[in-house]
Amino acid sequence: MEATYRALRDCGYASLTMQDIADEYENSKSSLYYHYESKQELLVAFLEYALYEFATELSISDEPSRKQLQSLFDTLVPRSIDRDHREFRLALFELRAQAPHEPAFAEQFERIDRVITDALVDHLEAGIESGEFDDVDVEATAEMYLTLFNGATYERATTAERFDAEPIRSALDTHVQTVLVEGNPE
Amino acid sequence: MEATYRALRDCGYASLTMQDIADEYENSKSSLYYHYESKQELLVAFLEYALYEFATELSISDEPSRKQLQSLFDTLVPRSIDRDHREFRLALFELRAQAPHEPAFAEQFERIDRVITDALVDHLEAGIESGEFDDVDVEATAEMYLTLFNGATYERATTAERFDAEPIRSALDTHVQTVLVEGNPE
Repeated sequence: MEATYRALRDCGYASLTMQDIADEYENSKSSLYYHYESKQELLVAFLEYALYEFATELSISDEPSRKQLQSLFDTLVPRSIDRDHREFRLALFELRAQAPHEPAFAEQFERIDRVITDALVDHLEAGIESGEFDDVDVEATAEMYLTLFNGATYERATTAERFDAEPIRSALDTHVQTVLVEGNPE
Repeated sequence: MEATYRALRDCGYASLTMQDIADEYENSKSSLYYHYESKQELLVAFLEYALYEFATELSISDEPSRKQLQSLFDTLVPRSIDRDHREFRLALFELRAQAPHEPAFAEQFERIDRVITDALVDHLEAGIESGEFDDVDVEATAEMYLTLFNGATYERATTAERFDAEPIRSALDTHVQTVLVEGNPE
């Protein structure tokens, strides 16, 4: 899985071969084919693995909900991003762009979207419970945040000009302040 | 351009050939090559044409700004969408997904993003001017709306489950009501 991560990051999806992954794995291509019948099957397994790793990062802690929501935004729409991370995100975008023709990929990305929405719902409900946030429609709010993250990923990958996360983060901050916090009658 | 529209809608981008476009054009492939050196060049010209057509749809009228913003949302994140329109949007998504490897495509989509953001800024400024909206950060708000539209396009194209625009539209309505209208001291 780590070899697949490195190969995806360094080669992108479009030109990725089983040989690239085997090279990173420091093992033979046939040893990969022993476990996975095809590149697509290996990549689906990789997405499952990445989802599992990612989900553990999103869980709730004891900190104030607003602060936790902020950390979630930092993970999902980072203000800055190093080269390796950017290359990996671009490869994930290329994988997701195959989804219209690869139902197994679509299924994994739907699961990833669901895990993110669930985490957002948990954080929003905890904030409402503790009295930090107004009693908003948590499902619609979580879906809106998810769509912003996906939109930022899409724009980051497909515009040649250097993508700027600042306006989106600023609009998210306004949303939290105006809709979640100031709407709160307490 | 209309032949290219129909060919893209019916064949998608991935398998599109100059022959498909020539068939729709009811003319020979060589007549297409007389005008365009390659499929990529024709598609860039098509994106320029589509942008021009699209931009005229987004201009300001005399109606209240909130109503105009609503029409813009209807165009950009439609609640329902017919089959032909969905197929065409999917083809546009596939074109945009090539942007990391096709700078000429990236450039066209950056222009399209800019046209949408400019239209949103115009509508927001008109609403602030007329006293309908609070004096918000129009650039950040317009960028957030744009990213929501792009995110919805990305999700619609890449999830096998039927995409539901309702939560995003509902969150947009809340945003307009809470941030733009209720924030207004008048």
